Amino acid sequence: MIIMKSEATKEEIADVVKEIKKYGLRADVSRGAYRTVIGLVGDESKIPFSHFAILPGVKEAVMVETPYKLISREYARMSEPDSDHRVVRVGNVEVGGDVPVFIAGPCAVESREQMFRIAEGVKKAGAQILRGGIFKPRTSVHSFQGLGAGGDEEAEEALRWLHEAGNAFEMPVVTEIRGEGQVDLVAEYVDMIQIGARNMYDQDLLTKVARKRKPILYKRHFGAGIEEFLSFAEYMVAEENKDIILCERGILPLGKGRSYSRYTLDVTAVPTIRRETYLPIIVDPSHAAGRRDLVFDLSCAGVAAGACGLIIEAHYNPVEALVDGQQQVTPDELEEIISACHAVHEAVRHRKNRD
Amino acid sequence: MIIMKSEATKEEIADVVKEIKKYGLRADVSRGAYRTVIGLVGDESKIPFSHFAILPGVKEAVMVETPYKLISREYARMSEPDSDHRVVRVGNVEVGGDVPVFIAGPCAVESREQMFRIAEGVKKAGAQILRGGIFKPRTSVHSFQGLGAGGDEEAEEALRWLHEAGNAFEMPVVTEIRGEGQVDLVAEYVDMIQIGARNMYDQDLLTKVARKRKPILYKRHFGAGIEEFLSFAEYMVAEENKDIILCERGILPLGKGRSYSRYTLDVTAVPTIRRETYLPIIVDPSHAAGRRDLVFDLSCAGVAAGACGLIIEAHYNPVEALVDGQQQVTPDELEEIISACHAVHEAVRHRKNRD
Amino acid sequence: MIIMKSEATKEEIADVVKEIKKYGLRADVSRGAYRTVIGLVGDESKIPFSHFAILPGVKEAVMVETPYKLISREYARMSEPDSDHRVVRVGNVEVGGDVPVFIAGPCAVESREQMFRIAEGVKKAGAQILRGGIFKPRTSVHSFQGLGAGGDEEAEEALRWLHEAGNAFEMPVVTEIRGEGQVDLVAEYVDMIQIGARNMYDQDLLTKVARKRKPILYKRHFGAGIEEFLSFAEYMVAEENKDIILCERGILPLGKGRSYSRYTLDVTAVPTIRRETYLPIIVDPSHAAGRRDLVFDLSCAGVAAGACGLIIEAHYNPVEALVDGQQQVTPDELEEIISACHAVHEAVRHRKNRD
Amino acid sequence: MIIMKSEATKEEIADVVKEIKKYGLRADVSRGAYRTVIGLVGDESKIPFSHFAILPGVKEAVMVETPYKLISREYARMSEPDSDHRVVRVGNVEVGGDVPVFIAGPCAVESREQMFRIAEGVKKAGAQILRGGIFKPRTSVHSFQGLGAGGDEEAEEALRWLHEAGNAFEMPVVTEIRGEGQVDLVAEYVDMIQIGARNMYDQDLLTKVARKRKPILYKRHFGAGIEEFLSFAEYMVAEENKDIILCERGILPLGKGRSYSRYTLDVTAVPTIRRETYLPIIVDPSHAAGRRDLVFDLSCAGVAAGACGLIIEAHYNPVEALVDGQQQVTPDELEEIISACHAVHEAVRHRKNRD
Repeated sequence: MIIMKSEATKEEIADVVKEIKKYGLRADVSRGAYRTVIGLVGDESKIPFSHFAILPGVKEAVMVETPYKLISREYARMSEPDSDHRVVRVGNVEVGGDVPVFIAGPCAVESREQMFRIAEGVKKAGAQILRGGIFKPRTSVHSFQGLGAGGDEEAEEALRWLHEAGNAFEMPVVTEIRGEGQVDLVAEYVDMIQIGARNMYDQDLLTKVARKRKPILYKRHFGAGIEEFLSFAEYMVAEENKDIILCERGILPLGKGRSYSRYTLDVTAVPTIRRETYLPIIVDPSHAAGRRDLVFDLSCAGVAAGACGLIIEAHYNPVEALVDGQQQVTPDELEEIISACHAVHEAVRHRKNRD
Repeated sequence: MIIMKSEATKEEIADVVKEIKKYGLRADVSRGAYRTVIGLVGDESKIPFSHFAILPGVKEAVMVETPYKLISREYARMSEPDSDHRVVRVGNVEVGGDVPVFIAGPCAVESREQMFRIAEGVKKAGAQILRGGIFKPRTSVHSFQGLGAGGDEEAEEALRWLHEAGNAFEMPVVTEIRGEGQVDLVAEYVDMIQIGARNMYDQDLLTKVARKRKPILYKRHFGAGIEEFLSFAEYMVAEENKDIILCERGILPLGKGRSYSRYTLDVTAVPTIRRETYLPIIVDPSHAAGRRDLVFDLSCAGVAAGACGLIIEAHYNPVEALVDGQQQVTPDELEEIISACHAVHEAVRHRKNRD
Repeated sequence: MIIMKSEATKEEIADVVKEIKKYGLRADVSRGAYRTVIGLVGDESKIPFSHFAILPGVKEAVMVETPYKLISREYARMSEPDSDHRVVRVGNVEVGGDVPVFIAGPCAVESREQMFRIAEGVKKAGAQILRGGIFKPRTSVHSFQGLGAGGDEEAEEALRWLHEAGNAFEMPVVTEIRGEGQVDLVAEYVDMIQIGARNMYDQDLLTKVARKRKPILYKRHFGAGIEEFLSFAEYMVAEENKDIILCERGILPLGKGRSYSRYTLDVTAVPTIRRETYLPIIVDPSHAAGRRDLVFDLSCAGVAAGACGLIIEAHYNPVEALVDGQQQVTPDELEEIISACHAVHEAVRHRKNRD
Repeated sequence: MIIMKSEATKEEIADVVKEIKKYGLRADVSRGAYRTVIGLVGDESKIPFSHFAILPGVKEAVMVETPYKLISREYARMSEPDSDHRVVRVGNVEVGGDVPVFIAGPCAVESREQMFRIAEGVKKAGAQILRGGIFKPRTSVHSFQGLGAGGDEEAEEALRWLHEAGNAFEMPVVTEIRGEGQVDLVAEYVDMIQIGARNMYDQDLLTKVARKRKPILYKRHFGAGIEEFLSFAEYMVAEENKDIILCERGILPLGKGRSYSRYTLDVTAVPTIRRETYLPIIVDPSHAAGRRDLVFDLSCAGVAAGACGLIIEAHYNPVEALVDGQQQVTPDELEEIISACHAVHEAVRHRKNRD
């Protein structure tokens, strides 16, 4: 839509209309007492709005349609009326179906024994998918970066432990990649590839991962608007991979003074995203909280808001964990969380016309 | 705590210690290989840290203790070991007790008939306290500002309608004040006075309202950190009024692109605030959402996160509401919300050691 | 403007048009291939957009015009073509004219002697207006709140010191009020009344101060968008007081990790606000920085960006200042800042077509 | 530093001290009336603070030292007392020296003729380094992504045009890379490699680029805190490449309502970063503004705040530019900007003890 200045001349309006036609669209000119508004009729994506914004007489040139189309429910409904929600299959687990899914495991893979012990614990607690970090994104180059930092051989060994622990306890597995160099190796060993918050905007990486044709766990950046998040998810669907699970993991805390949590869980994003796209969305309470004692409350809040699942960091001995010990829960705590979340899900699922 | 620069001299350290003593505190000097840290022993509030921050040799001068003490659980526990939570009585309703409390009513009082009809509807839906706005804070001076804008007489009439509707359906009532000039009048007619988000920082107003000795519903500003919110709540408790109900109502949305909700409900604030203070906290999903279709999900999320109650805008005919029609729910929708919230509360209340 | 859903029926469109007419406006209906857009012709402020947003078939109902009109340059130009900028007279000083104006003085008035000594110093340094805080807004109730906290008599004495120091060194004076109870008293003694950042949204206070018919120094809240800031300024101009000086004083810092300054000076706001309104805008580098060593750089940046002046906290002995010592500069430093700012102003003023 | 809870027992304190020793550091225990604080003596980077944070009796475990050391001025001064600022040589141009440096050119390389014509224009206007985008990061997959999107051959041709235009007008050249796959190719043709805001956190990419031993133009992410920005710059210096030029390009706008600029230029970051690191910092007014009419003001503000240079998008015909036409200036406007910036630099450079 092109909004003209109040003082725009007839000639300026005519020039804008002429320019729109060049791009193969039609123009609907609405002349009012205060100003003229020109609606674009046709595919707005052909229009370089920044170009129109500086034509003489133009006040604002804005796209009304959302920048993401392929992932939108509105778009999906045009072709298939009942395609409101997509169920993503990770191994034999369905994400986005009738029951919430719980992904759990340690922040970082530390040893074969650690992985097996935790896998056993989270399975017993009710988790369906196993996680374990091998390439850890870290703020400081001086911090532990995961076993993946030890070179290809060490990385592959850690991947094997994760894979085997998943096999042993019948859970598909997921791990995060952080750079293009890790995609091929990781894809061989896991059922789902995670793209972390800090790589959300990394369009070359998104494209490369999407082409692996595996499910992708895709986290929102902590400074990203929802529209940006969905627009970048579109990069993967544009590669014809629709097995994308979105994940809200907390946004930047706001305001002066001390932070009581590492991030602010944007629980509002859960129902708004559900109304925009058919892709399932889950919540990561562990990174949002950064504190073990908040994980229960944020987990229940996420499920209550309509999340299709949770990803929770768990360790049998958080004090000894090499990374993020302060936010990992024990398998016992995880069991309590999963049990409460199922009850919460039961409490809210009978809503009429949820979205 | 005073952190000295690495190159600070012995003389500079000695001067800082001397200065601390002037204020009646003691200093613990810890000399390390990199730098010296001086801990303050005694009441840190006597120390002007900004003054210390510019003494020669000082790198940082920070208060370790929180700026709020009177409202803190830690403080309360010193005198009374079991004073973890305060139950605030509003009329005959207990906020902060065993069951969640629902405050509901129209955004704005419009007429006697409207108030009675809505009061009947929300009572039937399960609400325990009745709300209705008379002095509406508005961004634009060109918008409807509530019946209170019509002068004292009209304001008093609207207050009477609210009061009578509350009486008729046995609900205590709450309304917002926006300026010092409204405090006396409002206090005559309501059981609880609301201080809205935009007045959160208004310390003169807080003091004046607190002295009325009525329960206060105190909303967090949408740009305020939690520490600020609690620090300003301290202004009211400093007037010896502990009947404060805190309310999270959404913070500024983050990130580029279009906003899908009016604000972002900071659900993380609910459990963090519960761990800091004994004052009860409730959630306002209506203003956070700004969209009727999100109120159910955000309500359930708030209760799941541990909120002691909700304040929800309701109207029998939102399309005709003079203010904020797009976020008000009908009594029928409210009933569904309250029912789901009770079930959610039941699902999470059995957590061991919640806080 | 009303944007209809793509699936909106003819009847729904007709209903919207009918509804618009009820409010005395005309509708321009633009039917496109994707959707229909209805432009409002007439005074959009009569339209309750929230009401229209929930009519059947409506996707979005947005106001195209800004919520502030009385203060807008566009509006002012309609009646008077050359009314691009307003010069506000504070005593005999012109703010918004050809040269930048410097307001300086201590954060807090402490004594008669202190005020006279600082007044002399800032006058010599080149300042034209004298500031001094008597009612200090503070985050913690446990902090020093200014001499105004000592009661009416003490407040009046402090106001007299400020007034006399201004007289003695031929500078008009400004002080901040924080609540409605201070307006009458303060107005007797000062040439300009300051409304601080934390009271920005306080519409009852704005109205009361505006009616005093004195110039007002009006600071942007640290969490407020520019549109909000200008919309609330409109409250004062709606009282027919156009002597408003806007002030940018820093917004909330963004991002994780330690803050290196108290706030982030939003220097971008200076030229954008200049293009929206004829009211002059100045910058407060002291509160934005919260650190004395940044004041020079931020002052020069503010003037380079087009600010009409600066308000700077100054004290002959910042170490001894009772409030905010760490951000106050000495008169010598102030002189250096003012001198550099005049040179910067000279460097940028010859731009063709600045706004 | 480890801050213990007020109720911590002697045993808990002793356990923390014991644990610190395990990591090869010493502990200074300061016992106060309220609490005990344990200072770490030695290299704090060996300490997993998250591990300490959950030991019994611990209230907070925080690192006092910054997470970046290699790039810090404090650190640099220990070995070389006069190493306050680093001059980065890009071809024959010095960034961080006595005069501000101007990098200019089109947002996107479009053709050989376009590059030569713009190179000639910006050279004449006073620019010293030529920029041109080939791999464009874009929010929407439906937008033009630069000539680099056409495949390796087309990308190489565009790089050659950029290189040749630089040669013809004696300017070193810079272009942005967006993924690991582009690093080798780009490094062959340019004098400096740009890492854009959206890749700021991409540690694998940073490492790969740093190893090319070319100067790097490194932009701050729009949601990143300064500490994060510097911590990630440390990843490149850890690869022994100190030729890093930092760039502030605007942060997320804050607050409700319409945005008047694309981002908010964080001019406060310029002097704070200068005080933390010896690496030079420049400013990008074009992306911060997103509007051509703000570029002059923001450029002058950046230089006034102490920036070592600017990077400005320029095009002889912004209306026809394929990307970001609304923010590109013409060579004539650029000349006016550069001329004003030199005058501003002259006005502020004589400050005593700038940092």
